Amino acid sequence: MRIVIIGGVAGGASCAARARRLNEQAEILLIERGPFVSFANCGLPYYVGDVIPEEAKLLVASPDSFRERFNIEVRTGHEATAILPSERKLEVRVLGSGESYQVDYDALVLAPGASPLRPPLPGLDQEGVFALRTLPDARAIRDFIARRHASRAVVVGGGFIGLEMAENLVHRGLEVSLVEMLPQVMPPFDPEMASPIAERMTREGVRLLLGQALASVESDLTVRTREGLAVPADLVILALGVRPETALARAAGLELGERGGIRVDDQMRTSDPHIWAVGDAVEVRDVVTGRWGLLALAGPAQRQGRVAAASICGREARFRGVQGTAIVGLFGLAAGCTGASERALRQAGRDDFSVVTLHPGHHAGYYPGARPITLKLIFRTSDGLILGAQAVGEEAVDKRLDVIAMAIGKQATVFDLEECELCYAPQFGSAKDPVNMAGMIAANVVRGDLSLALWEELNEHAGLVLDVREPHEFERGHIPGAVNLPLGQLRSRLAELPTDRKLLVYCQVGQRAYYATRLLAQRGFAPALLSGGYRTWQNRTAAQTPQVAR
Amino acid sequence: MRIVIIGGVAGGASCAARARRLNEQAEILLIERGPFVSFANCGLPYYVGDVIPEEAKLLVASPDSFRERFNIEVRTGHEATAILPSERKLEVRVLGSGESYQVDYDALVLAPGASPLRPPLPGLDQEGVFALRTLPDARAIRDFIARRHASRAVVVGGGFIGLEMAENLVHRGLEVSLVEMLPQVMPPFDPEMASPIAERMTREGVRLLLGQALASVESDLTVRTREGLAVPADLVILALGVRPETALARAAGLELGERGGIRVDDQMRTSDPHIWAVGDAVEVRDVVTGRWGLLALAGPAQRQGRVAAASICGREARFRGVQGTAIVGLFGLAAGCTGASERALRQAGRDDFSVVTLHPGHHAGYYPGARPITLKLIFRTSDGLILGAQAVGEEAVDKRLDVIAMAIGKQATVFDLEECELCYAPQFGSAKDPVNMAGMIAANVVRGDLSLALWEELNEHAGLVLDVREPHEFERGHIPGAVNLPLGQLRSRLAELPTDRKLLVYCQVGQRAYYATRLLAQRGFAPALLSGGYRTWQNRTAAQTPQVAR
Repeated sequence: MRIVIIGGVAGGASCAARARRLNEQAEILLIERGPFVSFANCGLPYYVGDVIPEEAKLLVASPDSFRERFNIEVRTGHEATAILPSERKLEVRVLGSGESYQVDYDALVLAPGASPLRPPLPGLDQEGVFALRTLPDARAIRDFIARRHASRAVVVGGGFIGLEMAENLVHRGLEVSLVEMLPQVMPPFDPEMASPIAERMTREGVRLLLGQALASVESDLTVRTREGLAVPADLVILALGVRPETALARAAGLELGERGGIRVDDQMRTSDPHIWAVGDAVEVRDVVTGRWGLLALAGPAQRQGRVAAASICGREARFRGVQGTAIVGLFGLAAGCTGASERALRQAGRDDFSVVTLHPGHHAGYYPGARPITLKLIFRTSDGLILGAQAVGEEAVDKRLDVIAMAIGKQATVFDLEECELCYAPQFGSAKDPVNMAGMIAANVVRGDLSLALWEELNEHAGLVLDVREPHEFERGHIPGAVNLPLGQLRSRLAELPTDRKLLVYCQVGQRAYYATRLLAQRGFAPALLSGGYRTWQNRTAAQTPQVAR
Repeated sequence: MRIVIIGGVAGGASCAARARRLNEQAEILLIERGPFVSFANCGLPYYVGDVIPEEAKLLVASPDSFRERFNIEVRTGHEATAILPSERKLEVRVLGSGESYQVDYDALVLAPGASPLRPPLPGLDQEGVFALRTLPDARAIRDFIARRHASRAVVVGGGFIGLEMAENLVHRGLEVSLVEMLPQVMPPFDPEMASPIAERMTREGVRLLLGQALASVESDLTVRTREGLAVPADLVILALGVRPETALARAAGLELGERGGIRVDDQMRTSDPHIWAVGDAVEVRDVVTGRWGLLALAGPAQRQGRVAAASICGREARFRGVQGTAIVGLFGLAAGCTGASERALRQAGRDDFSVVTLHPGHHAGYYPGARPITLKLIFRTSDGLILGAQAVGEEAVDKRLDVIAMAIGKQATVFDLEECELCYAPQFGSAKDPVNMAGMIAANVVRGDLSLALWEELNEHAGLVLDVREPHEFERGHIPGAVNLPLGQLRSRLAELPTDRKLLVYCQVGQRAYYATRLLAQRGFAPALLSGGYRTWQNRTAAQTPQVAR
């Protein structure tokens, strides 16, 4: 049996190594267009930023180590140019010599990845305009910065790669502007969860230009936006997202999906029974929304590679789909998500969900150094099934997301979060961990003990806005139109409150307001919690403020 | 309805607050013997160590805040002296005046906690011998150290509190010896997982005296052990564990369990239908072993308090049992566990389980600063059900344990760990997170693709011990009797290996040995992996070395 794999990074490399472990006899051939296999592409921004100074660190494996450890033949600098499915043959061109040859296969795995989007706009093909996908790309950016003494960079695109590039260029001492078409950074995030990231970036000196669409790059590298801005630059980084590489698959007549990726079954098999596909080039099914999508992440790619290898070797294995767990670290902040966002759920036509937001410390408040985490939990209102979470903060954000990611993977409910037994010592968490807290609040909603107000209701003047913080907090800032009645005085001053209007209750982060809503609900009022309190209101307000002027 | 709660710390305080949120009308009375309610007892060692310098930080709530926020009456300095179940009355003594009075209740909640064990040995009742349970205890230790200029401390007991006290006393500049009867610290850990903790403590200057049972304390505070050691001290801390406070319950005729705690049902109700009990005083059922046990932890106590409140207020709520998730931080190391240990499983008569150990970096190795985590995963061999995990390391140990804790809570299998989609950016994890890696290795075992050797087989000379590391690694140290044959040369040197003997294969941490076993198994050999490799062998060896001489 000969297994041929096209593409030697995350998905392809994992597939090759796994295939060898399952089948010592098979001939395994890995074809890679680039000069390297199995390099750490998630480290590229940090190599540009000199956080990782040595290129060699990024080379996880080499053709030699594949041969030595796995008896796998690796051909770098070879490009697959055509598949002949009926003959089970592959056409390969040697990039150095231009020569071509054919290879027979019993099983073919496509792991070509995705290429950076380069829209057909003027000036994008000149020197000084870069995208970052490969080690040579990273090297070219480093060299260009050094050679031209570049001091001003424009990053176009506010997704994960764009943010990481912005941070790393600041780290190298450049002045950085970030141009993003949407009114927020981090498109997988809901706007109010993205605003703390924007705020931190601005604080760290990144000039954020949101709601600005790239129009062109001038010959002096000035970036122009459709909205009329002109941003001078010595260096332009395009981080506009990626497009699955499907040319080979399309030419071979393989089925593609509605989102433009290669369509595979849950064994990663394409519409041709002898061809599998994995990684950024394939469409994956979202386990929460059930929708097909594209997701360029290394973790799922590696698991897909393992599933494809198992399938090829006659084993049973299924790829479960994806939940889009992702995280970015920048300027000391971590921001991540798992499962669906509010926006994604609405786009999928779902409305049976509720949202709680909280701002707990990352560990017990009585131990020095607790940093707040903003945690947003989205769940099905009818039964508490967890649908998604987003979190931002300086410490242990990844921990809370990972616990919720595991919960989503097991189709857990908010009741499971309420009751899960997590590590507690004062340096690491709280007796009620932020994950427990989120579960407890959400469980109250599902049980009908707590009504949530929609933040949008604030604009409808539907009810009285009740601030239950202390007067000195209220005076430092409050939601316009709110009435202040501290929690401690609530029982004795109930007569001041109307029973014929909804009460939209908030405090600083939500805890006191929760106590207040329980009290009020049992006393004949109609309270609803503005979840996340004044802090969430601030984030939401910041998300609605244009960032261009800064 | 009048709800009376005895004990105002974790379980009692949570129960009171939750009862109010569920029932605004009930009269709620909290009786607390000590001077404080709702203080952070997990912070006490850090208050002794001056990491938390202000006592006020530990006071999470006060009688005033209970009244203001919750309309709950708190009586500190009042001790419940007897329950009259048939009359639903409680007898209470005012500690200041000695006066007694009776209180009627509709529902009574016992949350008396547990008291430090003080064995009947000579010299334990004198000044300078302390246990640490309450804020006044902590204050007394601080005062004693300051007043006597104490410079040498002996901590007796190597569990969580003992270790935290040892660290905090070192932090205050004292010379610290730790006396422990068992041959290891951290009894919930298996020995080889405890040895890195012992090593770190020794490195940080703690004199570890393992396998030494307390015999007496002399009048000059010298600690004597049954094994004949005499350890001079200016201060002795007893951290020998706790005993549930059951005097009231016993006198009232409530059913106790086999382990000496109050027996409750899954609603936290005792054998009397009007009396509930929560916290350290009750027996809890272990969700993994099914056994009743005692567990003095704040998290479960608070959840029990919530369940009792719900039950009293006519709600449905069940306490799921415990899995013993716990963690300790000391000297920059974190060590924690969730679920059952090997020892606990053996004690419960279970033998259908396997163990994998690994030593991955806490994040991607190519990004600077990755620190190793030693992670031990225990699972049912027949179907992969996760039974327990232990982990030790400097960074993000709690994260991995929490993910596995959530998995155990959902009765997940190693296949779920293999496939879970966790946060990955190079600062936070790896495309294959340590949790995924543990799951992958374990899944190979369950699928029959990987045979694990028992470490005990090394002593039986049952097979050839095969070291597949590079020669320079082998020369720096190896398992006695091992033969070195590097992974890269294995395929070409298979003829050197016997087919009629088991091959016990290891490398440094396990990865290369895993590759080797897959290769060998498919080539007609009988390989078995020594999971965790040379590093685990070192930990196991260290665990067998007596620590007394140091």
